[in-house]
Amino acid sequence: MHILDILLKKRNGGTLSREEIQFAIDRYTAGDIPDYQMSALLMAVFINGMDDSETGALTEAMLHSGDVLDLSDIPGRKVDKHSTGGVGDKTSLILGPIAAAAGVRVPMISGRGLGHTGGTLDKLEAIPGFRVGLTEAEFRRGIAEIGFCLVGQTSRIAPADRKIYALRDVTATVDSIPLIVASIMSKKLAEGIDALVLDVKTGRGAFMKTLADSRRLARALVSTGNAVGKKTIALITEMSQPLGTLVGNALEVEEAILTLRGEGPDDLTALSLELAAEMILLAGLADDLPAARRIARDQVESGRALEIMRRQVAFQGGDPAVVDDPGRLPAAPHRVSVKAPRAGHVQAIDAEKIGLAVVHLGGGRLTKEDLIDPAVGIRLIRKVGEVVAVGEPLAEVHYSGPDRLERAWPLGAAAFQIGPEPAGPPPLIHERIE
Amino acid sequence: MHILDILLKKRNGGTLSREEIQFAIDRYTAGDIPDYQMSALLMAVFINGMDDSETGALTEAMLHSGDVLDLSDIPGRKVDKHSTGGVGDKTSLILGPIAAAAGVRVPMISGRGLGHTGGTLDKLEAIPGFRVGLTEAEFRRGIAEIGFCLVGQTSRIAPADRKIYALRDVTATVDSIPLIVASIMSKKLAEGIDALVLDVKTGRGAFMKTLADSRRLARALVSTGNAVGKKTIALITEMSQPLGTLVGNALEVEEAILTLRGEGPDDLTALSLELAAEMILLAGLADDLPAARRIARDQVESGRALEIMRRQVAFQGGDPAVVDDPGRLPAAPHRVSVKAPRAGHVQAIDAEKIGLAVVHLGGGRLTKEDLIDPAVGIRLIRKVGEVVAVGEPLAEVHYSGPDRLERAWPLGAAAFQIGPEPAGPPPLIHERIE
Repeated sequence: MHILDILLKKRNGGTLSREEIQFAIDRYTAGDIPDYQMSALLMAVFINGMDDSETGALTEAMLHSGDVLDLSDIPGRKVDKHSTGGVGDKTSLILGPIAAAAGVRVPMISGRGLGHTGGTLDKLEAIPGFRVGLTEAEFRRGIAEIGFCLVGQTSRIAPADRKIYALRDVTATVDSIPLIVASIMSKKLAEGIDALVLDVKTGRGAFMKTLADSRRLARALVSTGNAVGKKTIALITEMSQPLGTLVGNALEVEEAILTLRGEGPDDLTALSLELAAEMILLAGLADDLPAARRIARDQVESGRALEIMRRQVAFQGGDPAVVDDPGRLPAAPHRVSVKAPRAGHVQAIDAEKIGLAVVHLGGGRLTKEDLIDPAVGIRLIRKVGEVVAVGEPLAEVHYSGPDRLERAWPLGAAAFQIGPEPAGPPPLIHERIE
Repeated sequence: MHILDILLKKRNGGTLSREEIQFAIDRYTAGDIPDYQMSALLMAVFINGMDDSETGALTEAMLHSGDVLDLSDIPGRKVDKHSTGGVGDKTSLILGPIAAAAGVRVPMISGRGLGHTGGTLDKLEAIPGFRVGLTEAEFRRGIAEIGFCLVGQTSRIAPADRKIYALRDVTATVDSIPLIVASIMSKKLAEGIDALVLDVKTGRGAFMKTLADSRRLARALVSTGNAVGKKTIALITEMSQPLGTLVGNALEVEEAILTLRGEGPDDLTALSLELAAEMILLAGLADDLPAARRIARDQVESGRALEIMRRQVAFQGGDPAVVDDPGRLPAAPHRVSVKAPRAGHVQAIDAEKIGLAVVHLGGGRLTKEDLIDPAVGIRLIRKVGEVVAVGEPLAEVHYSGPDRLERAWPLGAAAFQIGPEPAGPPPLIHERIE
């Protein structure tokens, strides 16, 4: 087998065999195929596509390029949730404890913030002492004893994906559905899960801006997950405005805690419960979705989910007192309000602009080396559909210094669109794909 | 401007601007754009194509990546011929002297053998003492004083092409018409020519195997040449069987000399005269093609063309006595005949197999480091359309030792196809495209 024949075949629109895909991935990971050949192959895949069987083979080749956790010795079904990335999306911090409280085992390997979207690891690290770099033994113990544990990706998980992702990033081959699917699924399957719930975001703040593109991605993810024997379902959910009202690392932990106490904003509460219910259903702990929803709600109302969070934070080295007193989280020294320039109805809040504003405040990374300021962020006071008078506050910016504020301010202010027409809040969950 | 935006545009099927193409080529040649980005761009160009204006811009960007000869101080029109590569194709050695004798200035920068096809430089080096590495001053003097001079490509001519060609070779992006056109034309235009005749080969021994593909390539070459202000015409000529009867470096020099004496085989003579006539016409030395053909024939019949060859060989350090006595050329120590396994009509002689057989005899290179044996080759005794009896010789193999012969023999023997049906010789010139 030779990489040139594989390049030729995909270039001409052919379908690669499982063996050809495995060969290309194995040899590239081993360093026997140079970057310039892999980048040509990625471009050919981008333009000519991959069918379901190729995408499945690519996923498995990338999955088996590294370690695959085997959690079968831990009793109970292991189910995770993965989101394609949004702004203000702290559902992992909420649904993990809810599902674990209901008896699901949730082995979560999370990422850092990427572009304008936040990362679960960065958020949890806002809790003083919290460690995401657990050993495998610690991670397994967390899953077995608490039911929910969360770590960062190690270099031993899907190394092919890390190498290929870096190359896609610099060769304009990022937004290809088969490549996205293989990247996501190879990492998730390495967690040793039995089933997976996907939250595919759609709209202005999402990777996929249109419902049609989000649907294509969701279908490809679900079909690949099911093809490799892991029951997978996807919800397509709205990401035109940020989820919830708080954006920024410590602020999002605070909002997650409020939601687990039953005091969270409607959209965040509804989506977290729905995703948790899907996990409970996939774990076989409910007969149908309405029953699973009742179980999920009960974990919040009984305080059991909050107790899981308390134990998980403590287990991972964090200060568990923040769960009862979020005031212990880092807070920014300064606050300033964004005021409505005119009266009217909030038509839209551009999630991408809000996300970028938080990055500029220091809450995300502009380069890989940037340190994150966990305290900064934005509190949305009005959301889409609400009415404002002129001069009323729309949002509150939590910032560390005037230079940071100066860069973030124009984005934050431009995010709000106010008009005379009444606007309803956008639908939260568009579709369920299984 | 950023290479990622250029990649994105071509990936999505867009048309690149002149500035974008120039940026990509300049920065790649300078080493600022890495191979893995250029290979992704080449693959996107391969699959999504380039229109005439993009191909022209690519050609000019590659042309101006290095030195461009200015021969305008040498009186007379400078016209060259370029062939897309064939087997037994020694027309350059014949038409150069004919055109020069008629008053055309022929500044020829030639290449080495590539794959199964021979290279003009390798052929001329079969003449004892012949030097292809002239200085620019020597080359100019040869053009001015003799009218025909021939050198190898220097590293200062179209360095972008050399770098890109090496990358295409290892990324399955060789046979893309815009990339072939820019590669050929950027090197030819660097010669300082006023006009160009192209010999686009078609058939089994050619790069383009079908007439339709050859026509597409010829049209793209002609339109690019004319777009950059150099009058360009193309002949599409047959390359299913080798041209002439001798294949191999010294053997081809011998056949060129015979042809300049008026004693060459019909096909080689006819094609050389026709290409020379096109050059004479493009140089403005004849009113129409019939007049140009008469002028070309007269240069052979009068012996003036042979005299040009004698002077050119001497000017380039070669032994001019070979022109009168080809027996002075290197000769292989052994000869063996390929005999007809059955009686019948020669249906086909696979030029690619004959070319590869000569490579295996040592007449070409399997790796870049291989030394060439100028003496070896194959003499075709029968050509397509002729009748043979069983056991009659079809070809004579000139070889240096049994190990070489062993590797070449199966290819040489398999090249001949003999069948019961009468077969006409294939047409020599299929189309003229201007």
